[in-house]
Amino acid sequence: MRTFAEITPQLENLAVEVPSWAYGNSGTRFKVFSTPGTPRTVQEKIDDAAQVHLHTGLAPSVALHIPWDSVDDYAALCRYAEDRGLRLGTVNSNTFQDDTYKFGSLTAADPSVRQKAIDHHLACVDIMNETGSRDLKIWLADGSNYPGQNDLRQRQETLAESLATIYAALGDEQRLVLEYKFFEPAFYATDVPDWGTSYVHVSELGDRAKVCLDTGHHAPGTNIEFIVAQLLRLGKLGAFDFNSRFYADDDLIVGAADPFQLYRIMVEVIRGGGLAPDSDLAFMLDQCHNIEDKIPGQIRSVLNVQEMTARALLLDREALTKAQAANDVLAANDILMDAFYTDVRPELASWRQTKGLPADPMSTFLESGYLQQIASDRVGGQQAGWGA
Amino acid sequence: MRTFAEITPQLENLAVEVPSWAYGNSGTRFKVFSTPGTPRTVQEKIDDAAQVHLHTGLAPSVALHIPWDSVDDYAALCRYAEDRGLRLGTVNSNTFQDDTYKFGSLTAADPSVRQKAIDHHLACVDIMNETGSRDLKIWLADGSNYPGQNDLRQRQETLAESLATIYAALGDEQRLVLEYKFFEPAFYATDVPDWGTSYVHVSELGDRAKVCLDTGHHAPGTNIEFIVAQLLRLGKLGAFDFNSRFYADDDLIVGAADPFQLYRIMVEVIRGGGLAPDSDLAFMLDQCHNIEDKIPGQIRSVLNVQEMTARALLLDREALTKAQAANDVLAANDILMDAFYTDVRPELASWRQTKGLPADPMSTFLESGYLQQIASDRVGGQQAGWGA
Amino acid sequence: MRTFAEITPQLENLAVEVPSWAYGNSGTRFKVFSTPGTPRTVQEKIDDAAQVHLHTGLAPSVALHIPWDSVDDYAALCRYAEDRGLRLGTVNSNTFQDDTYKFGSLTAADPSVRQKAIDHHLACVDIMNETGSRDLKIWLADGSNYPGQNDLRQRQETLAESLATIYAALGDEQRLVLEYKFFEPAFYATDVPDWGTSYVHVSELGDRAKVCLDTGHHAPGTNIEFIVAQLLRLGKLGAFDFNSRFYADDDLIVGAADPFQLYRIMVEVIRGGGLAPDSDLAFMLDQCHNIEDKIPGQIRSVLNVQEMTARALLLDREALTKAQAANDVLAANDILMDAFYTDVRPELASWRQTKGLPADPMSTFLESGYLQQIASDRVGGQQAGWGA
Amino acid sequence: MRTFAEITPQLENLAVEVPSWAYGNSGTRFKVFSTPGTPRTVQEKIDDAAQVHLHTGLAPSVALHIPWDSVDDYAALCRYAEDRGLRLGTVNSNTFQDDTYKFGSLTAADPSVRQKAIDHHLACVDIMNETGSRDLKIWLADGSNYPGQNDLRQRQETLAESLATIYAALGDEQRLVLEYKFFEPAFYATDVPDWGTSYVHVSELGDRAKVCLDTGHHAPGTNIEFIVAQLLRLGKLGAFDFNSRFYADDDLIVGAADPFQLYRIMVEVIRGGGLAPDSDLAFMLDQCHNIEDKIPGQIRSVLNVQEMTARALLLDREALTKAQAANDVLAANDILMDAFYTDVRPELASWRQTKGLPADPMSTFLESGYLQQIASDRVGGQQAGWGA
Repeated sequence: MRTFAEITPQLENLAVEVPSWAYGNSGTRFKVFSTPGTPRTVQEKIDDAAQVHLHTGLAPSVALHIPWDSVDDYAALCRYAEDRGLRLGTVNSNTFQDDTYKFGSLTAADPSVRQKAIDHHLACVDIMNETGSRDLKIWLADGSNYPGQNDLRQRQETLAESLATIYAALGDEQRLVLEYKFFEPAFYATDVPDWGTSYVHVSELGDRAKVCLDTGHHAPGTNIEFIVAQLLRLGKLGAFDFNSRFYADDDLIVGAADPFQLYRIMVEVIRGGGLAPDSDLAFMLDQCHNIEDKIPGQIRSVLNVQEMTARALLLDREALTKAQAANDVLAANDILMDAFYTDVRPELASWRQTKGLPADPMSTFLESGYLQQIASDRVGGQQAGWGA
Repeated sequence: MRTFAEITPQLENLAVEVPSWAYGNSGTRFKVFSTPGTPRTVQEKIDDAAQVHLHTGLAPSVALHIPWDSVDDYAALCRYAEDRGLRLGTVNSNTFQDDTYKFGSLTAADPSVRQKAIDHHLACVDIMNETGSRDLKIWLADGSNYPGQNDLRQRQETLAESLATIYAALGDEQRLVLEYKFFEPAFYATDVPDWGTSYVHVSELGDRAKVCLDTGHHAPGTNIEFIVAQLLRLGKLGAFDFNSRFYADDDLIVGAADPFQLYRIMVEVIRGGGLAPDSDLAFMLDQCHNIEDKIPGQIRSVLNVQEMTARALLLDREALTKAQAANDVLAANDILMDAFYTDVRPELASWRQTKGLPADPMSTFLESGYLQQIASDRVGGQQAGWGA
Repeated sequence: MRTFAEITPQLENLAVEVPSWAYGNSGTRFKVFSTPGTPRTVQEKIDDAAQVHLHTGLAPSVALHIPWDSVDDYAALCRYAEDRGLRLGTVNSNTFQDDTYKFGSLTAADPSVRQKAIDHHLACVDIMNETGSRDLKIWLADGSNYPGQNDLRQRQETLAESLATIYAALGDEQRLVLEYKFFEPAFYATDVPDWGTSYVHVSELGDRAKVCLDTGHHAPGTNIEFIVAQLLRLGKLGAFDFNSRFYADDDLIVGAADPFQLYRIMVEVIRGGGLAPDSDLAFMLDQCHNIEDKIPGQIRSVLNVQEMTARALLLDREALTKAQAANDVLAANDILMDAFYTDVRPELASWRQTKGLPADPMSTFLESGYLQQIASDRVGGQQAGWGA
Repeated sequence: MRTFAEITPQLENLAVEVPSWAYGNSGTRFKVFSTPGTPRTVQEKIDDAAQVHLHTGLAPSVALHIPWDSVDDYAALCRYAEDRGLRLGTVNSNTFQDDTYKFGSLTAADPSVRQKAIDHHLACVDIMNETGSRDLKIWLADGSNYPGQNDLRQRQETLAESLATIYAALGDEQRLVLEYKFFEPAFYATDVPDWGTSYVHVSELGDRAKVCLDTGHHAPGTNIEFIVAQLLRLGKLGAFDFNSRFYADDDLIVGAADPFQLYRIMVEVIRGGGLAPDSDLAFMLDQCHNIEDKIPGQIRSVLNVQEMTARALLLDREALTKAQAANDVLAANDILMDAFYTDVRPELASWRQTKGLPADPMSTFLESGYLQQIASDRVGGQQAGWGA
């Protein structure tokens, strides 16, 4: 196994973007619980995100969701973020909360709906030009609930056309990342249900179109690290949306449901060069905190990614390759497990301190009084949420 | 195969209760779409439910959800329903939309929360006494999202105590039906996740406690008709919540996703005496119409149940038993499929007419102008929905 | 809805290849049951396959599995088949029953193993040249049981190289069809686990490389008709392996587990031109008859495909397109269901008779005495099976 | 968190029974690979099992499978085991490899088949009387592949009668443990598919009938630790069959697929008293080593159970209970994760040495030359396997 000292240069490269929406209220179709201190504005979301980075050093950028985070002056928003040590990151083009999109957005049968959705994406590109964001992330709620409702095949053609129009509007340094999802909110057919469909579309678009892999968007039992390896091999893995799940798209804290899976994913990321200095692979959180506190939930999440990345970096790949070549099944598995079972937390704590960060970011944050402060400050107004 | 004439006496026994909430708005966590004409009050929901019964003759009763359908005068509400040819049916005790229940209701660690939830159920029993409802249906959103969050075992003890208190308040003709659900809104552990858990609790309670089987509440691949057969054998199947699903608890129109599964379920219902005159098994719908029209969605649903019941009644059980005894796999399967593949729709249409019902309930309703009428009448006010 | 007379020209196009192995013994890891009359030779398998075609007119060709069906003289085998009214069809290159392939075949880490597997495929191409077979079907058991056992990414490179060598050996009229499978016999990672992976490889190979879709090889809940639509759109769906499943790769009779799914698949096949006269899409059975009689099992299977194809052809696509364009969810679904619920069996029976076929192929076969005859004739020798 | 010193008294209680069949050949329906040195007799299986105990101190008993392990003189077999430091443990009554049981054993429609199966179980009880075994473990392959094939309900009655006859033959110190399984080898309906069904039957039988939980026998996504908690609460968890899985009943090394799940299971075992001195809960392995070496595979397995048990024992339950009572979701989860993430391997190694065991059982065994010895000694004869 490698030593902790050997892995710190690579560990330095790890950065995890946080999503602005994670700081607002979220929930299930049954209930959205609100919490004292929930942000009312995108600025307050940025304030909260800054706390995550302040205590962990891991989360230097924030993803925006449009129209949730629409503002009049994006340059000012950039400065607001920079003043708090953050960058504005990926722009997400939400097209699932407008009555217009009841039967689809970029895939809609109705051309006027489709045009509206395309225009929304073009507006997102305008925002990116102002914020300096590199990535336009497209996740579509498009699909159908009943067999026969849509023409499955036609929707693929329509989608291809819509995406081509949007892609054409991107600048040379900008990318389109297309997310896929197994199901929900569509319950019969989803228009981008799997990595294969996303891959087909981004391949047709061009070099700056990539796949976004959300760890909660697969069929039960899917081997996610295989997809990671395949897409990295094809040069088409653009971004991760991290979260975890036991059942469906549960959007739990990444690493909470199956830490060993997160470890295996990071092993393939490293194997495929995704953590190399020249990698353009984006790591993002995309998850809810329905019942737990949101800022601590985000802190726990980026720490989980860091801990599993550290374990994955410890892996003795030379020994592993040797055991694999010898078809020594148990030895190869043992080598993989050895790094996973190694408790990296004490050395991570020390390392954090050498960088001027708290050894224990969670308790330091909890003791800082920030949660109490926002609970008493943020009174009145409309708390941010999915519908806001 | 039996003839259609032979099965009509049993087909007469079929009645499917409709849920008041199906007429209000519903959706996913991503979006609830509203529709013109959506009811604002429980009375308007009853008006809509009356249309389903008027055109199909299949849906003589309406289930209430408390607190959504709370009124001051339940006797008046009964008369309102009766004036429209309906009965008030099962009372559902929703304990999932109050901030208090964020960490559970009947299983909550906090005794004051638990007491509030118990009191809510006792209030539901009071309502049942006024409405003449037989069944108190309990579905709990209780559970946890993260390993360690709850003490799984203690929650079972707590649940048993809460249920015992509620059961003790029921009258001699009243029943408690306990629903189970695999997951959602809890994403790690659900306190009543499977039929075994529901069975354990209702067995402990007594004869008037039964299991409620929702067809969308199982793990992928679960053989639901097996559970139907088992619970009928044990005398513990109290009620069905009908809907259908491709993935999770999609709450689609019953029979839409897998009509053959609905057929097999009805075959076991009949095999187990669930359609016999003395059966106390309740058939209910429990589903959403997120994107399709709600009243037509309900009409399609009760018709689907009727059509599959008719096919199931046609089954030549004598021949089937013989083939089963001979281990003639293909012959037994052929006999089962023969009834399923028989198109009962023409004979059902004729039969409906002999009973003074429209041959084609769906088109008759659509042509009646009712949807246009409510869209123009029901203007202003707050449309009913899950949060209302 | 279209009339039966309107659909018969297209129904004429339907042909379903049967696999030689279906007539031999098969089973689970727990037990392979043998049956009196099971073929001992490939010639006897062809005799049995001829019975299926004789009674149904649906199964004019037989797929071979090499090495199971290896013979010295393939020209003679062709004539043997032709004398019985059959063609030899697809050649399957089984590389899963040799000790050499314990750790993979075309993806093996050991170059000598890989070369052996490639050579086996080249030998299969030689056979194809003699039998006049168009398709080389490759299904690989390659994969791993434990995390770390294999280098997931390297295996993709190795696979690509192996496939390129094989593809280069094909004649201008020959095709390579690459099957994917979710899991089994590998239990951690499978080297071609999903349509995306198969698509990536066949796209790289060239025009005469296509995907083979086995209906039992997907994750729970996968929308298979979507994949059909997508691959037809991309011009990359080469072949179907039909069977059905409730859980995993159960290899049950096609249409037995979910006839509605088979119907939806055939709807997309027709929608995508897969049944057009110029289509090169191959329909094959690939299933077991572990406990039921094998020849009747095959007859039931091809009839199921025919019945669901007939229903799918009846679909009123014009009306459907109109309802889809109007976003009339319920009407569109009703149109789709109408064709599915129509009982085509009586008209199919009459049509068969006009073609000189028995109205009821199953009972005609059962009464023919063939099963009794082979049971008394085929005594001694080694019954064919997976290990033979 | 507790200290390692605090947990050793409880860790001493851990014993894991190994199954004799694990040392023989096993595989999938596609291929059973054989290995040099595979046992030819039950005595050789016991020799191999003795190696696992010798190096780990964790596996003092061996489960027998009848008829695979049938011998003329069980008293002699007992002595053979004792001479090697082992006990004969649970007797498994395999009824899945006889042609007679093609359509079921204890649930068969044919009374003569049923009687044969019952007699086989009575013979197993006779063996238990000679071996001093406490537990008769019943796992049934009974079920059906096609809807209609069996009368689901009647099979439950038949099963209940068969079990009652067998239970009546047990001595006062003997137990019947009934295993359930989701599917395989039956692919439509399994006669004991879930814990609820097993619970219903063993409850009816009496106090000495219990449920056997095989960790690989559940639907995708099932929360197994919940079932553990429930059955321990009900006093009905009799035994574990340990293994792990990614997809179906993969029978991989326990802990290999999801070590965190194994940890959570052990947490609930401890919570429910299953590791207390007076507990009668049996821990057994029930898994295959299809491609890896068998004895090392068993060593890895018992070590995995030990390591996860140690982590589970470290859990600070007092702190956890406090966080749970406060509904502090993140703190409760953190406490649970803290013990899981603690690397117990160094302290376990030291502790082993204090007990006269090797610090590293795996490498000590591999260096012992035993595998080389049996490979050269065990030449000729018929290697043991499922069919033997």
